[in-house]
Amino acid sequence: MQTQILERMESEVRTYSRSFPVVFTKALNARLTDEDGREYIDFLAGAGTLNYGHNNPKIKQALLDYLASDGIVHGLDFWTAAKRDYLETLEELILKPRGLEYKVHFPGPTGTNAVEAAIRLARVAKGRHNIVTFTNGFHGVTMGALATTGNRKFREATGGIPTQGAAFLPYDGYLGEHTDTLDYFEKLLGDKSGGLDVPAAVLVETVQGEGGINVSGLEWLQRLEGICRAHDILLIVDDIQAGCGRTGKFFSFEHAGVTPDIVTNSKSLSGYGLPFAHVLIRPELDKWKPGQYNGTFRGFNLAFTTAAATLRHYWSDDSFERDVQRKGRVVADRFQKIAAWIGEQGIEASERGRGLMRGIDVGNGEIADKITAKAFENGLVIETSGQDGEVVKCLCPLTITDEDLLEGLDILEASVKQALR
Amino acid sequence: MQTQILERMESEVRTYSRSFPVVFTKALNARLTDEDGREYIDFLAGAGTLNYGHNNPKIKQALLDYLASDGIVHGLDFWTAAKRDYLETLEELILKPRGLEYKVHFPGPTGTNAVEAAIRLARVAKGRHNIVTFTNGFHGVTMGALATTGNRKFREATGGIPTQGAAFLPYDGYLGEHTDTLDYFEKLLGDKSGGLDVPAAVLVETVQGEGGINVSGLEWLQRLEGICRAHDILLIVDDIQAGCGRTGKFFSFEHAGVTPDIVTNSKSLSGYGLPFAHVLIRPELDKWKPGQYNGTFRGFNLAFTTAAATLRHYWSDDSFERDVQRKGRVVADRFQKIAAWIGEQGIEASERGRGLMRGIDVGNGEIADKITAKAFENGLVIETSGQDGEVVKCLCPLTITDEDLLEGLDILEASVKQALR
Amino acid sequence: MQTQILERMESEVRTYSRSFPVVFTKALNARLTDEDGREYIDFLAGAGTLNYGHNNPKIKQALLDYLASDGIVHGLDFWTAAKRDYLETLEELILKPRGLEYKVHFPGPTGTNAVEAAIRLARVAKGRHNIVTFTNGFHGVTMGALATTGNRKFREATGGIPTQGAAFLPYDGYLGEHTDTLDYFEKLLGDKSGGLDVPAAVLVETVQGEGGINVSGLEWLQRLEGICRAHDILLIVDDIQAGCGRTGKFFSFEHAGVTPDIVTNSKSLSGYGLPFAHVLIRPELDKWKPGQYNGTFRGFNLAFTTAAATLRHYWSDDSFERDVQRKGRVVADRFQKIAAWIGEQGIEASERGRGLMRGIDVGNGEIADKITAKAFENGLVIETSGQDGEVVKCLCPLTITDEDLLEGLDILEASVKQALR
Amino acid sequence: MQTQILERMESEVRTYSRSFPVVFTKALNARLTDEDGREYIDFLAGAGTLNYGHNNPKIKQALLDYLASDGIVHGLDFWTAAKRDYLETLEELILKPRGLEYKVHFPGPTGTNAVEAAIRLARVAKGRHNIVTFTNGFHGVTMGALATTGNRKFREATGGIPTQGAAFLPYDGYLGEHTDTLDYFEKLLGDKSGGLDVPAAVLVETVQGEGGINVSGLEWLQRLEGICRAHDILLIVDDIQAGCGRTGKFFSFEHAGVTPDIVTNSKSLSGYGLPFAHVLIRPELDKWKPGQYNGTFRGFNLAFTTAAATLRHYWSDDSFERDVQRKGRVVADRFQKIAAWIGEQGIEASERGRGLMRGIDVGNGEIADKITAKAFENGLVIETSGQDGEVVKCLCPLTITDEDLLEGLDILEASVKQALR
Repeated sequence: MQTQILERMESEVRTYSRSFPVVFTKALNARLTDEDGREYIDFLAGAGTLNYGHNNPKIKQALLDYLASDGIVHGLDFWTAAKRDYLETLEELILKPRGLEYKVHFPGPTGTNAVEAAIRLARVAKGRHNIVTFTNGFHGVTMGALATTGNRKFREATGGIPTQGAAFLPYDGYLGEHTDTLDYFEKLLGDKSGGLDVPAAVLVETVQGEGGINVSGLEWLQRLEGICRAHDILLIVDDIQAGCGRTGKFFSFEHAGVTPDIVTNSKSLSGYGLPFAHVLIRPELDKWKPGQYNGTFRGFNLAFTTAAATLRHYWSDDSFERDVQRKGRVVADRFQKIAAWIGEQGIEASERGRGLMRGIDVGNGEIADKITAKAFENGLVIETSGQDGEVVKCLCPLTITDEDLLEGLDILEASVKQALR
Repeated sequence: MQTQILERMESEVRTYSRSFPVVFTKALNARLTDEDGREYIDFLAGAGTLNYGHNNPKIKQALLDYLASDGIVHGLDFWTAAKRDYLETLEELILKPRGLEYKVHFPGPTGTNAVEAAIRLARVAKGRHNIVTFTNGFHGVTMGALATTGNRKFREATGGIPTQGAAFLPYDGYLGEHTDTLDYFEKLLGDKSGGLDVPAAVLVETVQGEGGINVSGLEWLQRLEGICRAHDILLIVDDIQAGCGRTGKFFSFEHAGVTPDIVTNSKSLSGYGLPFAHVLIRPELDKWKPGQYNGTFRGFNLAFTTAAATLRHYWSDDSFERDVQRKGRVVADRFQKIAAWIGEQGIEASERGRGLMRGIDVGNGEIADKITAKAFENGLVIETSGQDGEVVKCLCPLTITDEDLLEGLDILEASVKQALR
Repeated sequence: MQTQILERMESEVRTYSRSFPVVFTKALNARLTDEDGREYIDFLAGAGTLNYGHNNPKIKQALLDYLASDGIVHGLDFWTAAKRDYLETLEELILKPRGLEYKVHFPGPTGTNAVEAAIRLARVAKGRHNIVTFTNGFHGVTMGALATTGNRKFREATGGIPTQGAAFLPYDGYLGEHTDTLDYFEKLLGDKSGGLDVPAAVLVETVQGEGGINVSGLEWLQRLEGICRAHDILLIVDDIQAGCGRTGKFFSFEHAGVTPDIVTNSKSLSGYGLPFAHVLIRPELDKWKPGQYNGTFRGFNLAFTTAAATLRHYWSDDSFERDVQRKGRVVADRFQKIAAWIGEQGIEASERGRGLMRGIDVGNGEIADKITAKAFENGLVIETSGQDGEVVKCLCPLTITDEDLLEGLDILEASVKQALR
Repeated sequence: MQTQILERMESEVRTYSRSFPVVFTKALNARLTDEDGREYIDFLAGAGTLNYGHNNPKIKQALLDYLASDGIVHGLDFWTAAKRDYLETLEELILKPRGLEYKVHFPGPTGTNAVEAAIRLARVAKGRHNIVTFTNGFHGVTMGALATTGNRKFREATGGIPTQGAAFLPYDGYLGEHTDTLDYFEKLLGDKSGGLDVPAAVLVETVQGEGGINVSGLEWLQRLEGICRAHDILLIVDDIQAGCGRTGKFFSFEHAGVTPDIVTNSKSLSGYGLPFAHVLIRPELDKWKPGQYNGTFRGFNLAFTTAAATLRHYWSDDSFERDVQRKGRVVADRFQKIAAWIGEQGIEASERGRGLMRGIDVGNGEIADKITAKAFENGLVIETSGQDGEVVKCLCPLTITDEDLLEGLDILEASVKQALR
């Protein structure tokens, strides 16, 4: 494989190509192929961007049809038939059945852009600057979003501009299993000299992906919603990684039965790996004036097209959800087994997750890296997350075949044993 | 045309659909078609994103071939054959012939993201926080980029977070034609109590698009480069709108013969309207550590594919450049004629621009709006820019046929006469 | 009493004259006299600025002598005999006996100025911007200091500039008596994505005055020092209110046996109510370059003079300390008795404090206000503190006579009974 | 002279003691005496703090009388007879005769504190965050004020927190004598994408002291006032150094006949070198709520006392003003002569100033330092200002005797000749 020009010309900022130093060429559903023809099972799925697998044929056909018709590809925020179709499908298949009513903002086709738009709107709507965010949260790296992202790697690389406008509070479980971290939040809200500026909004992931597959409790989320309501604070769920079916429901917050004021989606939203994002806004909060937030690629019609096709194929009934939940249990069972084996080797390990967003926490990043490196040798692409990279995480396509899922789990289990023996 | 759901569900932030309230369905090169089958000549071209026209068949074929092969669509920052091909083509056809040596950072597929990455890298590389930017500059609206963008519309909609990290200086011509605004910059640099924190970088558009087709002088740019060199300040050219051939050269700064330290491109970079951006970095400035800046869609391989195809089709020799320059003169001539006619009506007007980035300044936004509204009635999509929207601007596809170009200009001329008579 | 011009001409920002709407004329030790000749016992003492009482004759003589000699009054940061005498006395009587070695920075004669200088130096010395501060902390209201002050009243009156550069953590006891809040701090320090930027320094009051006479435990302070050492973080003790003997030691941190890297003093430092402040700096941290921090009144020689006299009269041996501790126990005993009586009325109340910095927490500000209003009627000036003003606090002069102390306590006790019956 | 302990214990931040490395002991009017009994004529006067000379006997008596009566020294913001007397005197002798109506805010006894309060109030009153300030302006170094101060020495020593909330514009004359810098300001105000956030206020010194005795034109100030009125922007005159008679009028803005919305005074306000400051506020702008801005030393009654005495002794009629103006002409004439002589040596030099705030610009700091060093040898304390310290400035007491003034000028002239020959 020819990699010289890649090594020479691409910025040192590159990361994944360091863990997986091969040149990939093709992919189908949960399988990647490199230039030498070697196949890999994909438990990373574009960091949760390929919930429907690589090159999903059902979605691909809609894309090819649209291209064949010379439909509008790029349309700023023009009205197009493709956008209209997306909005109709979203309302019909996703919002209405869930009793949700939202307006839709297309802020530019990336997650960080959606977060910037969401928190800025919250500030404008409430007339307050502060956003409460949580330990180990990840919400993007452009400067507005970065203020809400916990990782020092990014926070320390701003070149002398401290972020502003956000306050970190402990996520569910952060202070141990016997402490409800919302007690602290509630105390601060009621404290006139506690140092917490009354927030415009709380920004939360129901399951923290980059933060280490940290799963918030359903009661915790419900209490969080209640606190927000009681204090006139907006609840923003960042569902960029956990949404689009990843946890076994379209929106991750459905499990808890809460209704966010604002929701951000991106990653798997287009269904085909195309850059796409939207912000869902409770209608009465849509305080934007025309053009107050813009971006060239806020009307990427190929993504409207594939996103609508995706909703139609996977979200017309609950069969897909149920299948994800079923596969989630398969992964959970195996991960528990693997974690137990690791425990027997004297290394504390545990399984956690929701739906097909699952991880094994092995305590430190070195051990996790050994495992994922061995897995790659064995034909499995799998990554870590967590503050120290201590969690081996499974973000396989939701559409993975049972055969590939089991083969991937077998490879992982074998790799763990090779790595830690 | 059914527009109810669009009006009901899309956020009030939408803008272009207010000026052009029809539903577009198809497009080819410089022609848009709405749902009723009406055709429009497109002098907006996705605000400079469709330099190669809508659904350019040459580029489309590369896209279809790639899709047919089930090539990697979404690959985070994995190495892929498509990325490698893009880098090779960029080096071979663009960088080498121009004597440029840059490393390439893919920061996420939008312009604002490229600007955030560029200025952050400059800060990290120089250990200084300040970025000098210019009156009427536009560089995006995420919080880091927004600090460098002059428009109050965006700056006042941050919800209580003043931007930080940038200082505005007068752009070329801002203080009248007899004042070289760089005198002020140079004086401030040498003044220990002038209030200008020594900048890490200067961020400049050689022609300001959103700011009103303001064209900086070539000597001004050369002097700016000289000042940067003398004071160890990086020169960043934001070529997102003016690059990719728009001014008659691939990079807009080629006219002045300057060599930026960092360049941002996006908009037309993919050639097909796909979200795509890169940051070009002088190799010695690539101070990024692995993963210090990230984003899910930094490896959109369809865009690598179309971008490479675009370079091969249009930039293998200088024929395309020369054709753009020729068309630019056609537009300039007609715009001068139109401006002269407007002047005869007692309204001061003037033409300006470089290449196919041209405008007629009619002095205020109301007049300009009348003209563009009339043009739309007459079948021409054309927009305004400038601080008050006082400049009617032509950003037609560079690939527009001579027939369509002339027809568009005829419509504009007629619309001006109808609007102002 | 003529108060019209005061009401008309003084800004609405005035506060204490609303609680005590009389015109004061004279004062001696713990007694204030108003224009009608009425006397009040002073349990406020200039919010801790008059530890040595009003117009202390021993200190006054030094002041008069200095004025008589036409000594330098104002000297920028000139060397003067008065400054030298102050430094010598400080070293001889305060630093050496306590085994402390500090350099001295005179940053301007107010507490907020001392805090600004202290945190800025910490940032410069460590090359990090973040300062950890605590819930209910008060450190001044100029913009740099305000970032570390918890009160919303001030934080919300910045007119659209969020503060920056500080992160609030829970003070000792904030999460209940069974939670060591430093567990949270330590967890955050070790967490690469917890959202806490590694701080340059921790800024702490050992007893929070404005925050409600919150007393940190000695072990907590020792552990805090240990955490700072372990993580290369500076420990700054803001001893502006709690220092100068208020807690029964010259420095409040002596009780815990910790050694801060930087100390701020002001309020009672001059001994006579003159504006004065200094910052004490571990010699190796004195990274200031000449003139990097300035201020016109950084050399107020009358204050050098009275401060030196104060040290000589009160701090040549430990008798004053012991006397303060004795009086502190008197106040504590009475406060406990009063709190118990309040409890009997069905209102939860408790006593707390260290030395002569003591309060009765009555649960809410309305009750506390009733008590202090009644006390003022009865001839006692006493104020509240805490986030809701729920703590009736005693900050009487340390030099108060036993007679006045007991009379003041009697008035308070009677006022409580009148107010709550 | 014993200076070891001073060198050892005082922070490296000290500055003036480096230029004048002697220990001063006494002073009277314009004469300083060091420990060896050597006398110096004082052309620095506490950087403009001692307009009425050192230990002015008339003011001293009021101070001694007050001390003798055991009047309140420190009173937070209690009403006291001394404060009332100050307000009455200020209204009667200063405000009424000048047709001014202001409310008075005592924000803490330093200039930087007054500036912080002034700009914060402006922001609160106008609901906008931005403050326009000018090149070479100096307004203090606490973080809020620092944003408006141009000197890099301070701006670069914040330890990683860029200032925010202010924009610098060119001061009168900054772009050469033929450019009215307000053209630029006015253009920016009218430009919706010029990058200037609509300011709450303009903060200006009519003569910049630290910036180099830069004198704004009276028409420039008038036009500035007009622009502020036209755009609903507040005009804040920072009269901390130029006020209190320094320019030949009590307020420096009287020369131009403008009426600021907010005025800051400090330095010479107490008349005796005591820390003191006030903010004058047009009554309708007094939007403070009780206690929104505080500070321990906001009621320093010794300063109220001496300030009132000063007003009575010097400002009951216009004789003092006229005397200052007369002396100003004496200094101006001699400075012109000296500048001419310097010019003859081939060094460009010029005189400038207003009243007794005057300087000789000798082009660079090295030459200026040679002159002031030589002057000190010859018994004259005189300092430099300007971005490079290139201006030898005279800030002698306004009360200086003609003999001392002439002797000082003679020493300076001789020193110039010795230094440059």
